[in-house]
Amino acid sequence: MPVRALWYRNGTLFLLDQRELPGRTVIRRLRTLRATAEAIRKMAVRGAPSIGVAAAYGMVLGYRQGTYSPERAARELRATRPTAVDLFVGIETVRRAWVAGEDPAAAADRYRDRIVEECHRIGLEGAPLLADARHVLTHCNAGALATVEWGTALAPIRVARARGARLFVWVDETRPLLQGARLTAWELARERIPHAVIADNAAGHFLRTGQVDAVIVGADRIARNGDFANKIGTYEKAVVARENGVPFYVAAPWSTFDAARPTGKSIPVEERDEAEVLGFGGRRTTPNRSRARNPAFDVTPAKYVTAFVTPDGVLRARELGRAIRRRARRPD
Amino acid sequence: MPVRALWYRNGTLFLLDQRELPGRTVIRRLRTLRATAEAIRKMAVRGAPSIGVAAAYGMVLGYRQGTYSPERAARELRATRPTAVDLFVGIETVRRAWVAGEDPAAAADRYRDRIVEECHRIGLEGAPLLADARHVLTHCNAGALATVEWGTALAPIRVARARGARLFVWVDETRPLLQGARLTAWELARERIPHAVIADNAAGHFLRTGQVDAVIVGADRIARNGDFANKIGTYEKAVVARENGVPFYVAAPWSTFDAARPTGKSIPVEERDEAEVLGFGGRRTTPNRSRARNPAFDVTPAKYVTAFVTPDGVLRARELGRAIRRRARRPD
Repeated sequence: MPVRALWYRNGTLFLLDQRELPGRTVIRRLRTLRATAEAIRKMAVRGAPSIGVAAAYGMVLGYRQGTYSPERAARELRATRPTAVDLFVGIETVRRAWVAGEDPAAAADRYRDRIVEECHRIGLEGAPLLADARHVLTHCNAGALATVEWGTALAPIRVARARGARLFVWVDETRPLLQGARLTAWELARERIPHAVIADNAAGHFLRTGQVDAVIVGADRIARNGDFANKIGTYEKAVVARENGVPFYVAAPWSTFDAARPTGKSIPVEERDEAEVLGFGGRRTTPNRSRARNPAFDVTPAKYVTAFVTPDGVLRARELGRAIRRRARRPD
Repeated sequence: MPVRALWYRNGTLFLLDQRELPGRTVIRRLRTLRATAEAIRKMAVRGAPSIGVAAAYGMVLGYRQGTYSPERAARELRATRPTAVDLFVGIETVRRAWVAGEDPAAAADRYRDRIVEECHRIGLEGAPLLADARHVLTHCNAGALATVEWGTALAPIRVARARGARLFVWVDETRPLLQGARLTAWELARERIPHAVIADNAAGHFLRTGQVDAVIVGADRIARNGDFANKIGTYEKAVVARENGVPFYVAAPWSTFDAARPTGKSIPVEERDEAEVLGFGGRRTTPNRSRARNPAFDVTPAKYVTAFVTPDGVLRARELGRAIRRRARRPD
């Protein structure tokens, strides 16, 4: 059975609580916009495309509550997390339907279907890039959990495996919240895809010693020139991959491309609570007097990206501008 | 009161158990060679210069036990950890005194004194490099805990601070064992040196955004050409520092220079138990079916090093060969 990160039925948004994985499978039932906003802020659901879909359904719940204007509903959901552009696209898609007097639930369903279908196409388009690879490195979780189904970075891996490629996946554990160790490993283990979790620090060692044939990651926001934001640590992996001549791929649906943003310079980078770094599982690991800094994302300049895997093919950074203008879905 | 990682008195080696920090201050009392070997293997004591001194006293304990030959004592201690060359230098120094009929304890004391004095000189030589720096990044713990007193990377920071520099230290938490978050932060907090712990993933972000003026690390083994082994993750930081034009310094006493090793190619890299990556504080964080890989060190090519801070001055990689031939202390 494929993983599904969330689904909606009759006024309830069901979420697989990603904070509990891999230890426990807990399904949250959300019936209000506010509960949905909280689930996004607290990262019960995370991953740019998934939070876009969750926010779209959050708008639907707000509509059903009867006490929100479309604008207030959108504002409350927008304030949850700043970096992933999908969040804003998902919200805006449903807000427009709502304002136009259309059925918000139908708009949210269409938005979700489009994300899932685009991720499947990312898998089909990206799989040939991995046909000759033996060892692939990925960072954070860009799997089904992050995108409702299929994944972005994991979609080409899944399709390549289904076509008979013998891939082994290096999984960066991805501190501070361990989305690699907890979530990517969980998805790969479920499907018996061979993998090993590594400390984020070890990625460079495996890249330098010829044990990585390709790196593939997702994204939270991609500017027109190909600069992109993704989970903190992505930038280091990209620099070290290029230094070692290892191809570095970024996979994303069109909702992650920010047509309004010429470069990555102005992408807002969320800084989260220092507690995520100062301790672990409720236990303090650092001295009481120590402080921490916790940027949740970094911005990687386009020059480090070998190619972008989009639903409409594999593109170089210089090809993105035109493709985005043509294809980036505006809220409709 | 300055930190002291270990001290010896009348047949007992006292160790500040570094696994317990920063939560508890636990002093281990070791009376046998075997207990010392175990403390090194299990990392109650760690840091290349400190394990060299601990092993030197381990030889003294073996001598006092009366049941060891010098060769068997050396063999047992050498088998504890493979990467840091200081371990072998410390053992060999005492083995030769033992074989020559000299007092092993006096030889171990001299070895320890030399390490501490060299680290102090590293501080004096390195401090001018940081005189204009405002933000310095360090990885792992290369402080007093790692070197008995003073530290290698932390010695220039301490001296620069004492001379009035207003340094702020970025501390890589250093997964999997968190020597940065636990030990470096503990040393800095004790001395009220401003610092922030960051996920290892975040170092690149701060380097790219102009928030790091210099990187300084210790080493576990430095080859004649300047290639060096250090805690896993060092290589990534070095590559990203150079990519951003940020100077990258390696500080080490002469015991860390391996005169017999022309390049870093053949430096043995210890791979530790996967459990260190698969969980945290006894709690499993990864799926039960997942495996991990856990190289404890990586090798950084000399080309990424701006300069080496030695007890006898700041040297470029090309100057090392001659300096090592002249100065590297052979076991005496």
